[in-house]
Amino acid sequence: MQIPQPYLLFLGDVSDPLSAKTARGIHAWRPDSCVGQMRLPGCEVSLELPDLTPLQAAQQGAKTFVLGTANAGGYIPQHWMDAITQAIKAGMNIASGLHQKLSDIPEITELAEQYGVALFDVRHQKPELSVGSGKKRTGQRVLTVGTDCAVGKMYTSLALEAALQEQGINAQFRATGQTGILVAGEGIPIDAVVSDFISGAAEWVSPDNDVDHWDIIEGQGSLFHPSYAGVSLGLLHGSQPDWLVMCHEMGRPHTRHLPHHPLVELEDCVYLNLYNARLTNPDVQLAGFSVNTSQYPEAEAKAYLAQISEQFGVPATDSVRFGLDSIASYLKQQSLLSAK
Amino acid sequence: MQIPQPYLLFLGDVSDPLSAKTARGIHAWRPDSCVGQMRLPGCEVSLELPDLTPLQAAQQGAKTFVLGTANAGGYIPQHWMDAITQAIKAGMNIASGLHQKLSDIPEITELAEQYGVALFDVRHQKPELSVGSGKKRTGQRVLTVGTDCAVGKMYTSLALEAALQEQGINAQFRATGQTGILVAGEGIPIDAVVSDFISGAAEWVSPDNDVDHWDIIEGQGSLFHPSYAGVSLGLLHGSQPDWLVMCHEMGRPHTRHLPHHPLVELEDCVYLNLYNARLTNPDVQLAGFSVNTSQYPEAEAKAYLAQISEQFGVPATDSVRFGLDSIASYLKQQSLLSAK
Repeated sequence: MQIPQPYLLFLGDVSDPLSAKTARGIHAWRPDSCVGQMRLPGCEVSLELPDLTPLQAAQQGAKTFVLGTANAGGYIPQHWMDAITQAIKAGMNIASGLHQKLSDIPEITELAEQYGVALFDVRHQKPELSVGSGKKRTGQRVLTVGTDCAVGKMYTSLALEAALQEQGINAQFRATGQTGILVAGEGIPIDAVVSDFISGAAEWVSPDNDVDHWDIIEGQGSLFHPSYAGVSLGLLHGSQPDWLVMCHEMGRPHTRHLPHHPLVELEDCVYLNLYNARLTNPDVQLAGFSVNTSQYPEAEAKAYLAQISEQFGVPATDSVRFGLDSIASYLKQQSLLSAK
Repeated sequence: MQIPQPYLLFLGDVSDPLSAKTARGIHAWRPDSCVGQMRLPGCEVSLELPDLTPLQAAQQGAKTFVLGTANAGGYIPQHWMDAITQAIKAGMNIASGLHQKLSDIPEITELAEQYGVALFDVRHQKPELSVGSGKKRTGQRVLTVGTDCAVGKMYTSLALEAALQEQGINAQFRATGQTGILVAGEGIPIDAVVSDFISGAAEWVSPDNDVDHWDIIEGQGSLFHPSYAGVSLGLLHGSQPDWLVMCHEMGRPHTRHLPHHPLVELEDCVYLNLYNARLTNPDVQLAGFSVNTSQYPEAEAKAYLAQISEQFGVPATDSVRFGLDSIASYLKQQSLLSAK
């Protein structure tokens, strides 16, 4: 299931920077895994990587050609086929986070077989799963949870991996969504598994490990989101986290896409996540808050974070503005204390 | 999606009564929908229905041939093919709750097309689903929830439908598992949908209805089961129940299939179900307890139920031993009170 790196990031012909979110995420978090970018005429986005043809990229060691942009409807347009074909002929595997499967396009599957390369449909590829067992596993686990969707759980998880590694901790990001999977090169798109296997998938994503190894597991949705809470709960139980990092956006008025539904209070969200997490790990604790404060001036943001930190007795930060060192230090300190 | 009734129930050649659970459930709850049974040589189970060939059953009005037994591994054995073929040739649709799909067997699909009959793989057939919206729908809703799997949620739902109908209430069972779907003729196997759509599927199962119409929704799993809680939570949110009926087994020592996991206390289970249900229906209330007391003498069972009823201030009964009239009466009384 491991997607071979490094990558050539294909940007297609997108004009909207948001559409290149996946490619941008891969480049931001795994710059050493990106040999270059490939753009078609009309593309108005750049990651400031060298523009390479598939052949040039392959010669520089690229192993996988990544469809790194979202397309309207999630389909692979006909005018991308030439680039994909070139990549396969240059010996590269193809990875895609789009809805339409590479493996459903005969032209691609036949050529891939002929050239002996692999196709990775990260939104669809799942291992043979079992239902969750709830049994305790070895190693340390942090799960990012949230008051809503799209409050920075993937970003926070990756930033926490980096901050913990800086402190000498053997931390590893564990992906549960398609962008995260392309960054990590492996993982399970947890919202795409059959619902019976949600917690089983979470157990698979974060297996037994060394006692001083830390999995930083990418959370999904929110226990308070009426559309996705089932996924969040199964992920929470299967992850059996030792620590939760609560992600939030300052001032967000209502649950995403549901204007009739006010956002949950932080206190209730922390409470319910800890309550449920105890089912599979009675020792779970809150490690801190990662808050998107970008809509507010710095002074207001700092005052808000200070107030949260005081209320809950753990660090509160904006991972983009102020970094995650405070949470990483807190985790290191607490785990040293509990090891004594 | 409606499976045409009445049925001819195919029992195959099972020797274990438990394997005929699906056929037995259909016959118990919808006797008027069962024209007869068909058994192969070696079958040691009988529902005391007339033994009919597919042709005889079709002549008596049977519309669908139901594979009503579980087979090891969920496969359709070769020696059942003759009966299935006869049924199709007699003009009957085929319905199956087995894992293996009828629609994956070319011999069956070709014959079905030739004779113009439909195939219902109830474990797999799902409508085009949307993610849940959490928006309030009209009509009354009761959801059965539980301390565990296999504590009688389907039985309780069907018994409550009958008890409410006896009291003149327009109640309708809503199925979320394969046996329930065969009983009702429609529904969604909620543990088989993609996890992103759990609450959306629950919303689909129980759409807007008349204000004096009651949906009795079949619950699944438990919020305290580490394997399946995600399904239970999505179903709870999507059902947006006005009333919960808590199902339980007296004296069960641990969560099903998980001997390392003690069963939750009733109080905690009621609390967490109500807490979560308020996300999509702030007015949700507990309607009573349906407890399997079959492992205990009647006097002990009655004392236990009386104690629960006093503790929570709602009826507590064993739906098999003592019926569900107490809960149906309570619901009728409460809804009359709140309508004033």
